Amino acid sequence: MTSKGYNTVSLIRKKRDGKELNRDEIAYLIDEYTKDEVPDYQMSAFLMASYLNGLNEDEAASLTHSMLHSGRVLDLSDIPGKKVDKHSTGGVGDKLSLILAPIVASYDVPVPMISGRGLGHTGGTLDKMESIPGFNVDMTLDRYQDILAKCRMVMAGQTEEVAPADKRLYALRDVTATVESIPLIAGSIMSKKLAEGIDALVLDVKFGSGAFMKTREDAQKLAETLVAIGEDFGKETVAYLTNMNQPLGYKVGNWLEIEESMEGLQGDGPDDVMEVTHMLAGTMIMLGGKADSVGEGIAMSHKAVENGQAFEKWLELTEEQGGDTSVLKDFSAYDHAEYSFAFKAPRSGYITEIDAYSIGMASLELGAGRKRKDDIIDPAAGIELHHKIGSKVEKGQSLVTGYMNNENFVEASKNYLKDAFTIKDAEPESTDMITHRVDREGIHPIGD
Amino acid sequence: MTSKGYNTVSLIRKKRDGKELNRDEIAYLIDEYTKDEVPDYQMSAFLMASYLNGLNEDEAASLTHSMLHSGRVLDLSDIPGKKVDKHSTGGVGDKLSLILAPIVASYDVPVPMISGRGLGHTGGTLDKMESIPGFNVDMTLDRYQDILAKCRMVMAGQTEEVAPADKRLYALRDVTATVESIPLIAGSIMSKKLAEGIDALVLDVKFGSGAFMKTREDAQKLAETLVAIGEDFGKETVAYLTNMNQPLGYKVGNWLEIEESMEGLQGDGPDDVMEVTHMLAGTMIMLGGKADSVGEGIAMSHKAVENGQAFEKWLELTEEQGGDTSVLKDFSAYDHAEYSFAFKAPRSGYITEIDAYSIGMASLELGAGRKRKDDIIDPAAGIELHHKIGSKVEKGQSLVTGYMNNENFVEASKNYLKDAFTIKDAEPESTDMITHRVDREGIHPIGD
Repeated sequence: MTSKGYNTVSLIRKKRDGKELNRDEIAYLIDEYTKDEVPDYQMSAFLMASYLNGLNEDEAASLTHSMLHSGRVLDLSDIPGKKVDKHSTGGVGDKLSLILAPIVASYDVPVPMISGRGLGHTGGTLDKMESIPGFNVDMTLDRYQDILAKCRMVMAGQTEEVAPADKRLYALRDVTATVESIPLIAGSIMSKKLAEGIDALVLDVKFGSGAFMKTREDAQKLAETLVAIGEDFGKETVAYLTNMNQPLGYKVGNWLEIEESMEGLQGDGPDDVMEVTHMLAGTMIMLGGKADSVGEGIAMSHKAVENGQAFEKWLELTEEQGGDTSVLKDFSAYDHAEYSFAFKAPRSGYITEIDAYSIGMASLELGAGRKRKDDIIDPAAGIELHHKIGSKVEKGQSLVTGYMNNENFVEASKNYLKDAFTIKDAEPESTDMITHRVDREGIHPIGD
Repeated sequence: MTSKGYNTVSLIRKKRDGKELNRDEIAYLIDEYTKDEVPDYQMSAFLMASYLNGLNEDEAASLTHSMLHSGRVLDLSDIPGKKVDKHSTGGVGDKLSLILAPIVASYDVPVPMISGRGLGHTGGTLDKMESIPGFNVDMTLDRYQDILAKCRMVMAGQTEEVAPADKRLYALRDVTATVESIPLIAGSIMSKKLAEGIDALVLDVKFGSGAFMKTREDAQKLAETLVAIGEDFGKETVAYLTNMNQPLGYKVGNWLEIEESMEGLQGDGPDDVMEVTHMLAGTMIMLGGKADSVGEGIAMSHKAVENGQAFEKWLELTEEQGGDTSVLKDFSAYDHAEYSFAFKAPRSGYITEIDAYSIGMASLELGAGRKRKDDIIDPAAGIELHHKIGSKVEKGQSLVTGYMNNENFVEASKNYLKDAFTIKDAEPESTDMITHRVDREGIHPIGD
C-alpha cells in the first residue's frame, strides 16, 4: 500500500476531508491503479469522495495528465498542418461529426477523430459509420496515421493503447454512481482527446432534457473545466454551449443518421443540425489556421457544402476505409428495415416539447442501441421525426415513423414515444441553438 | 447486479444524493455484500457516500440490524437473569472491563463479554487476559454458555460466526478512509454487542486526546446514536461520556494492566480508574435488576471490592478459563520483563497534559501492541506512569518506567515519550472524569 512515499488511505482521507491533492499525489493514485497496485475498492472510495467534495481545475488537469500518460500518446508531428478535433458531450440524433469532419478536412485541416460506441439513449459515431456496408473503424495506429496523412481525416475506434486508465476508471464509475461529476467527466474526455496528438479542440457541450448536463449552468461549468484543461496542456480549446431540448435533426438511428448527414453534406440538412455544424466547423477551420476568424470559417464551411468538396471528401474517406459509397449516393440501394410503424398525435396543437431521452430510448428499443455493452445493434433500426418543436399538428397526424426488423420491438418503443411529445394550444417561444462560446478569455453570449 | 427488486448503483446514487435508505434497501446491500454479490468496490463507494452525507438514526439501526443478522445471534434465554454487558470506545490504559465484570457477576448479574484484540495505540481486553499464563479466550459457543451459566461471567474472543458482515465492512473501512463515521462506528459496535444475546448494555464513550472521539460533542453524538440503536432493539442502553485526556490509571501494557486491575479489585486501584469502574458497574447492577438505582448499584460495587467477593469472582473465572491464579495473588511470581528504563522530567513544574496517544504508542514500541494484525505482542512489556496530570515534579525526576524484553526498542519508545508530557509553572485545573450520562430520556450532566 505504500510506495513512492504515498499512502493510498491518506490520499483518500485527504480528498474525503475536502483538501486538494497535488499532481504527484494524483499521479500516484492513477499510476498505481493502472498497475493494479491500488485496488478498485480504494479507487471507488476516492471517486466518491471526489464526486462529493469536488476536484478543482488543477486537480482535474492533474487527473487528465495521469490518464493521458497511462497509455500511448500519438505523435502526429510528421503530418503537416494544425490537427483539430471536435468532441460532443453526446446527444440524441447528434450526427454533427459526420458532416463537419469532411468540411474541415476539405480545407486541408487534418481531423484525427477517435470515437466511441453508443451506450444507453445516445448513439455512438462508430456505430453510425459501421452502418455503411464495409466501413472499417478498427485499424493499427500506423494505418490510422496513413489515412490521416492521405485524406486529412480519419474516423477510428478507441484502442486499448490510448488512455487505458480512463477506460478502467470509466467502467468503475459506471458501477459506483460516480459518473456525473464535472471534473471526472472533463478528465475522461480530455485524456482521450489529448492522446490523439491534436493541436486544438472544439467542444460541443450540450444542455437540456436530452443531454448529460440538464442545465445551462452545469454545461457552462463543464465547458469551463474542459477549456481550462485544454489550455493547461497548451492546446487552444473552444467550447460552445448548445441546446439539446429536442433531438438534433429529424433522424435518429445509425443508418438513418448517415442519410441525414449525407443530406447535410449536400446542402439539404435540417436547420438545427447545420447551424451548429457550421459554427463548429468554422471554428475548427479558424483553429487550423485556414481562416482569420470564426466568421470567415463559417462562410468557408457553407461554401464547402455548396460546391460539393465536403461530400467528395466524405466519399474519399469512405472508400479509403473500405466503405460502400454507392449507398451514400443512392439511399434506395441500402438494405432498409423490413417493418415500420407510425406514431400519431393524440391531440391537435403546437408541439412544445420533444423529450430527447424518450426518443433515444424509443430508437434503442427498436434495435438501434445497446442496453448492455455486448448487445448487437441493428444499423437499419431507428426513428424518423416528422415534426419538431413549434410545429402545428392535427390529432391523428403521424409524428414519428419507427423502423425495425423485428415487429416485437414496437410495443416497448411506443411506450417511450407516448411520453416523448408535449402538445399544447399555445405556440411555444423559439429557443437559441447555440447560447455561448467559452474560450480562454471567458464566456461570450452568442446572438442568433 | 439486480435482485430482490433493488439495483446496487441506484442505492449508492441515493445515498450519494443525500437521500435516506429504508430498512429493506440497507438489508439488500449488507446481505448481498456478505454473499459476495455486491463487490467491495461498490460497498466502498457506498461507505464513502455514507461517511460524507451521513446516515440518520433509522439508517444506523437498519445497518445494525442487517449486520447483526449476517451471522449467529446468541440465545442466552436458558441462563437466568438479565444479561448485561459493557462496551468502551477504547482508550489507553483502559482496564475497566477486567474490574467491573467480576464486580457485577458477583451479584449474580450475568456478564457475557466478547472482546477484541488491540491494534494501534489502544490495547485489547483479550490480549490483557492472555497475559495471564494459561488463560484461554478461544472456545466454542457451547462452552461459552457453560462458563457464563456457572461463573455468571465469561471473557471470550470474537468468533467468525458473530456479525461476519461487520468484520468484512470494518476491514474495508480501514483501507478506504471511512472508519471515523459516527453511524458506521455505532452500527459496528452495536451489531457485535447485540449478537451476544444481551438484555441491557452500558457504554463508556470516551473523548479527548487519547480517544477515538476528540471532542465531547462528537462523543455525545456517538453516545446518542448508540443509545438510539440499543433502544430500537428493545435493549436498555445507558452511555457515559468520560474524559480520556490522559491514560487511565498508571499502568499501560498487558500484564501491567492485569496487575493494576487486581489492585483495583482488592481496593487499591487508582482514583480515575475506580471512579469510572464503580459508575459503570453500579449502572450494570441496576440494569441487571439487583439495585433500584445507580446510586445503590455504586454502593454495592464498592462493597464487592471491600468484602473481596469481586476478586474471588475473578479468581473463579480465571481458573475456569485455564488461567494461573497464583500470579494474580503474588505478582512477584510473574515472569516480568528483563529490562527497564526511566524517562525523566526535562524541567520542573506541574504536569498539565499527558498525551494518551503518545503513551499508547510508547508502550506499543516496547512490544506491548501491534502495528499489524499479525504482530506478536510481549505480555510483559509496557509503561508505568509515576505521575498524572496535576502532579508537581522536579527536573530529572522519573516520570515513567518502561518495561521490555528487547533493549533495542527503547529509542523508538522514548521518541513518543518526549512528546507525551507537558510541564508548566501553573497548576492545571482539575477536570471531571465523567461528564454526562446519555439514556433514552436524553443527556444528563453528572456532577462530581
